[in-house]
Amino acid sequence: MKSTATQDTVLTDDQIAEVAQQLRVDSVRAAAAAGSGHPTSSMSAAELTAVLLARHLRYDFDDPGHPGNDHLILSKGHASPLLYAAYRAVGAITEDELLTGYRRLGSRLEGHPTPKLPWVDVATGSLGQGLPIGVGVALAAKRLDDLPYRTWVLCGDSELAEGSFWEAFEQAGIEGLDNLTAILDINRLGQRGPTRHGWDLDAYGRRIRAFGWHTVEIDGHDVDAVDRAMTEARTHRGEPTAIIARTRKGKGVAAVENREGHHGKPLADPEAAIRELGGVRDLHVDVSRPPAAERRELSGADPHAALPQYDRGAQVATRTAFGEALAVLGTRREDVVVLDGEVGDSTKAGLFGEQHPDRYIECYIAEQQLIATAVGLGVCGRTPYASTFAAFLTRAHDFLRMAAISRSDLNVVGSHAGVSIGQDGPSQMALEDLAMLRAIHGSTVLYPCDANQTARLTVALADRPGIGYLRTTRGDTPVVYGPDEEFPIGGSKVLRSHADDQVTLIGAGVTLHQALAAHDRLVADGIRTRVIDLYSVKPVDTQTLREAFEVTGRFVVVEDHHPEGGLADAVLESFGNGHPMPLLTRLAVHSMPGSATPEEQLHAAGIDADAIVAAARKLAAA
Amino acid sequence: MKSTATQDTVLTDDQIAEVAQQLRVDSVRAAAAAGSGHPTSSMSAAELTAVLLARHLRYDFDDPGHPGNDHLILSKGHASPLLYAAYRAVGAITEDELLTGYRRLGSRLEGHPTPKLPWVDVATGSLGQGLPIGVGVALAAKRLDDLPYRTWVLCGDSELAEGSFWEAFEQAGIEGLDNLTAILDINRLGQRGPTRHGWDLDAYGRRIRAFGWHTVEIDGHDVDAVDRAMTEARTHRGEPTAIIARTRKGKGVAAVENREGHHGKPLADPEAAIRELGGVRDLHVDVSRPPAAERRELSGADPHAALPQYDRGAQVATRTAFGEALAVLGTRREDVVVLDGEVGDSTKAGLFGEQHPDRYIECYIAEQQLIATAVGLGVCGRTPYASTFAAFLTRAHDFLRMAAISRSDLNVVGSHAGVSIGQDGPSQMALEDLAMLRAIHGSTVLYPCDANQTARLTVALADRPGIGYLRTTRGDTPVVYGPDEEFPIGGSKVLRSHADDQVTLIGAGVTLHQALAAHDRLVADGIRTRVIDLYSVKPVDTQTLREAFEVTGRFVVVEDHHPEGGLADAVLESFGNGHPMPLLTRLAVHSMPGSATPEEQLHAAGIDADAIVAAARKLAAA
Repeated sequence: MKSTATQDTVLTDDQIAEVAQQLRVDSVRAAAAAGSGHPTSSMSAAELTAVLLARHLRYDFDDPGHPGNDHLILSKGHASPLLYAAYRAVGAITEDELLTGYRRLGSRLEGHPTPKLPWVDVATGSLGQGLPIGVGVALAAKRLDDLPYRTWVLCGDSELAEGSFWEAFEQAGIEGLDNLTAILDINRLGQRGPTRHGWDLDAYGRRIRAFGWHTVEIDGHDVDAVDRAMTEARTHRGEPTAIIARTRKGKGVAAVENREGHHGKPLADPEAAIRELGGVRDLHVDVSRPPAAERRELSGADPHAALPQYDRGAQVATRTAFGEALAVLGTRREDVVVLDGEVGDSTKAGLFGEQHPDRYIECYIAEQQLIATAVGLGVCGRTPYASTFAAFLTRAHDFLRMAAISRSDLNVVGSHAGVSIGQDGPSQMALEDLAMLRAIHGSTVLYPCDANQTARLTVALADRPGIGYLRTTRGDTPVVYGPDEEFPIGGSKVLRSHADDQVTLIGAGVTLHQALAAHDRLVADGIRTRVIDLYSVKPVDTQTLREAFEVTGRFVVVEDHHPEGGLADAVLESFGNGHPMPLLTRLAVHSMPGSATPEEQLHAAGIDADAIVAAARKLAAA
Repeated sequence: MKSTATQDTVLTDDQIAEVAQQLRVDSVRAAAAAGSGHPTSSMSAAELTAVLLARHLRYDFDDPGHPGNDHLILSKGHASPLLYAAYRAVGAITEDELLTGYRRLGSRLEGHPTPKLPWVDVATGSLGQGLPIGVGVALAAKRLDDLPYRTWVLCGDSELAEGSFWEAFEQAGIEGLDNLTAILDINRLGQRGPTRHGWDLDAYGRRIRAFGWHTVEIDGHDVDAVDRAMTEARTHRGEPTAIIARTRKGKGVAAVENREGHHGKPLADPEAAIRELGGVRDLHVDVSRPPAAERRELSGADPHAALPQYDRGAQVATRTAFGEALAVLGTRREDVVVLDGEVGDSTKAGLFGEQHPDRYIECYIAEQQLIATAVGLGVCGRTPYASTFAAFLTRAHDFLRMAAISRSDLNVVGSHAGVSIGQDGPSQMALEDLAMLRAIHGSTVLYPCDANQTARLTVALADRPGIGYLRTTRGDTPVVYGPDEEFPIGGSKVLRSHADDQVTLIGAGVTLHQALAAHDRLVADGIRTRVIDLYSVKPVDTQTLREAFEVTGRFVVVEDHHPEGGLADAVLESFGNGHPMPLLTRLAVHSMPGSATPEEQLHAAGIDADAIVAAARKLAAA
C-alpha cells in the first residue's frame, strides 16, 4: 500500500531517506537564516514527515479547502522549520520564501505555525494542544460529516506530560477514532534536558493503550518501519493509533545529535552541518491527491423557527433562555454544534441535546478538551458553542488564548456567574471570567440580564467572528424587555433617562436589576439617575456612554465580578485617548465570598440596590 | 492492623457500618436544613469515610498543625456534607453547628470546604484539583521533610476525566509516593447522568496502573473490604495506591439510590430517608493520634547572603536577575522551594536548582500540576516559587483561582512576557497574564524593569501573603537603579519629574525604557514629561499617581499587554470612587502579533518610544 492511484511518482525508500535529509538541511538553513528557531527538534522527525508526505498523506496543496484533504497538525509547533521545509518539498512554498521569510516581520512563516498559512488548521506552539484539536477534527469526519480524510498529528514527547493530552487520548479512545493517528516523536530530550521517560517507548505505550488506543513502537529513522507503521495506522479499525517513534534530536549532525543544550537554537556551524547532511537538495514530493469527497450542505430543518419569547415581568433564568434559544438555533442551522462539560443540565445546553442529539457532544469534565474539540469542529466548518460553569472556563484559558491566534470562530457560554449563585460558595463562582475573556484578542463578551435579551444574543453570536462569550446567571431574573427588542452586539440599552440626570448607573446581568431598583429609590429621593444596561461588555457602546457622561459626568458601575478587568474597566476603556473621564464609583466583589443566599451575597459584596443607592448619593454630592 | 496503640476504642465492622449510616443521616440532615447541597454524592462514600476515620486516619483534631497528622483532602468537594458529618462524628464540630451552619452566611461550613476550617488544607469544589494538591503534600513528606504522615484523597469518578488528574497520577507514580492514597468513589453517576466508564472499575484501574500506581478494586460498601484495601494502601511500598471502590450514589435510600436526576439536591423527603437509614445516631469515632513527629526547623545556610548586584547601565535580562536572586534567597531561607515547568533554562529558575537541587522540583510540562504541587508544598510550610513562561500560566488559571480561595501563599513567576520576546510569535507571548493575575483575589502583581529591581522584588514576594506574581522579560534591559535602591510592594518610582510637567508617562518592564527614551525626545521638543515606573501593578501606588495627576492631568500609559486588564486599568483603578480622572491615552498591544525582532514588535504594536512621543504630543495639546 505504498501508493495510491492518483499519485504521480512513487519514491523508493532510499529516495524518501533523501527527502528526509532535505527536510533536515532546509530546517538548518531556515533557522540559520532567521538566527533563531528549532532545527534540532525538526531533525528528529524528518523521516516521519518524509514518509507521511510521500506515501500516506492525501492532500491537494492547491486546494486546501478540499473536503477530502487529510489534516496534518504540528502539535510540536516549535518544529516549524520541518513543516515549512515540507511545504517547500511539496511545492507549496518556494525555497526563497523559506530562507528569507522564516520568522521575519510580516511573513506568514512565523516562529510557530498559524493559519496565516492556508494549509495550517490551527495555531500551535503552546504544547499539548495539537492532539486535542486533532481529536475534534477527526470526530467531525467520523461522527458528523462522514468524510474520508485522516487526521495526522505530529507530537513531541515533552507535551505528553500535559494533562490535556490525556483528555484527548480519552476522548479519541472512547469515540473509537480510527481516522486519527498520533505520531509521537520520542527524541528523549526536552527543552532543559531529558524527558521523564526518555526512550522508554513502552512507558508511553502502556499509558496510551490503557486509554483505548492501538500503538506501534518503531525506530523513527527507519523509513520502511515508519511506512509500515503508517500503513497499519491507516488500516487499523475501531481504535485510533499512536505511532511511538524512537528518534534522535538533531539526528544527522554529530555536533548536536542526541546532545543536551541544543534545544531551540540555530546550529553553530550551519555550513558544516549541511555538508554533513549531504548538501542542499531540490527534491520534490508528489503528495497523493485526496479522494473525491463532498461536504454535505448544511441546511437547517426550519431556517425560520421562532425564538422563544418571554413575557415581561416573568421570572426566567438567563441560562434557561440560552438553552431554549440554542435549541431553536439548532433547528434553524445545521452547522451549529454544542459541546458540554458534563453540566448540560445546569448550563441548560442539554435542551439543545434533547432536540439535536446528533450534534450534541458530551466532553465530560475535561474543559481543555471541551474547547479543543470545539476548535476542531470549527476547522471543519461547524459553528460550535461550548458551555460549562463560567468559573471552570478558566481551565481552558490557554486553549481560548490559542484559539484566538488560530482565528477560530468559537462561542463559549459560561453559566453560574458571580456571587449571585449563592450557597455553593466561591469555588463555583466566576468572578474573573470577564477579565479573562475581555483580554482574549478579538473577543466578544456579552452579559445579558433577561431572557429575551439572552435569546437574541445567543443567536447573534453564531455569525460573530472570533471568540464569543456569553455569561449567564443561575437564578431567575425578571424579564424587562419585550420579545421583539433587538440587541446589537456593541450596543447597550438606556432603560431610564431624563434630561436632568445627575448620575448614571451602569450594570449588566444580575446587577442591572439592582440598578433599576436603586433608580426607583433614588428618584423618590430626588436624585435623577440614568440606567444603562451594558449587555455588550466588549465591544462596548462608546457613544451611549459618552452621551451619558455629557449629561451626568458621574457613573456608578456595578458588577458581579472582581474589581479588575470587568464592566468598570470596559466603561473606562471607552474614554481612552484623551477624552475627559467621568467621576466613577466601582461597585464590585472586593472580598472573598462564602456561602449565603443570593440576596445575602449581593448585599455582602456591596453590589445590591442598597449599595448603589449609597454610592449614587455620595457621588451626586461630590 | 485494625488499630494503633494510641487508639482509645476499637470499633467492630458492624459498628463502623453504623457510623457510615450516621454519616449518611447527617449528610441528609445538613442538606435538608440548608435547602441545598449534595447528599447523594456524600452517601456513596460513607463506608469509605467511616473506615478511614475509625481504623486508618491518624489525626489530632485538637492540634491540626501537628506535623505527624495525616492529611485528608476531599477532592470531590461537593460532598462537603460527608466531610462535615465526619467532623461531627469525631467530635470536631457539634451537631448544632452542622445543622444550623451548613451553607449559611458567615458560617465556616461552606458549600464546598475551605481552610476557614482548621482541618481543611485547601479549598476544593473545582473538580480535579484535590489529588494534584495531595501529590504536593505527599511529596513534601517524602522528599523534603521526612515526616511519617499519610495523605488520603477522596476523589469522585467524574473528576477522573480532568487531565489534571493524569498529571497528578504521573507525578506521584514517578516519585513513588507510597505515602499517598487516592480513594476513588466510583458511584457511576455524574452531574447530568452516567460517567464515561460507569462501574467499569478496571477501565480506571488499567489507566492508573499504567501510570505506575498500585490499585485495589473493591466494593466500597463492604466495611471489611474497605479496611483491607486501606491496610494494603498503607503497607504497599514503592508506589502510590488507588482504592477503586464501586459504590452507589445515594446508597441507603431507595428513592435516590443509583438513580439519575438526584445530583446536587437535598432529598425530597428527608424524614423518610432518615427513617430508612435507621434514624439519627450519636456515635463517636476515636481517631488514632498521630505518631510523634517534629517538623525540622528550616534555617538558611546563610541568612545574610548578599543579593546579586548589577551595575547601572549594564544590560541584563530581568529573568536572569530573578534566577540569580532566587538562588541567593534559597541560601538565605531553607523554606524556599522552586518548581519548574521544564523551562528552567529559559525562566532561569534553573539557577536555583544548580545551588539547591534538593529543593528544586521538576514538574515537566504540566502547568496545572506545577501549581498544584506548589500549593501542596505551601500547605506543608514551604514558600514555593513556581515558574514557567508567563503565557503558559494560563494553563493553571483555575488552580491559581482556587489557590486564592485556599488562602495559599504562593509565588508564580512568568517569563517571556509580551511582544518583546520577538521572533517566537504570539503562542509564546503573554499578553493577558496581567489581566489574569490582577483578577485573582488578594493577588500581588509585580513587573520589574531592571535587574536590581527584579532581585529585590523576587525576595520581597517571599514574605508577601496570597498569590504573588512576578513578570519577567526575555531580552536584556538596561540597569537603571542602583543595587541599594528599595522597591516596596505597592510603591512606584518617579524617574523623571519637574514642577512644570505637562504629561505623565507610565510604564513598567520593557515599556519603562521606552518611556525614558520618549521623555528625552519630548524634553528636547519642549514638552516636559514625568516618568513613573509602575513596577507594582497590584497593589498600585495611588498616592504617586494622584500627585502626578495633580501636576499634569494627562497620562500616557504604555504596556506590553493586550489593552484589557493591564497597567492602564490598574492606573485608573487608583482614581475610583469619585476622584477626578486624568485624560489618559493607553498604548497597548491591540493587534495580533506575528514574528519579528523585539524592536520591530514594539514598533508594530505601537508601544515604543516613537508611539509614546506621538501620543504625549497629542495629549499635551488636548
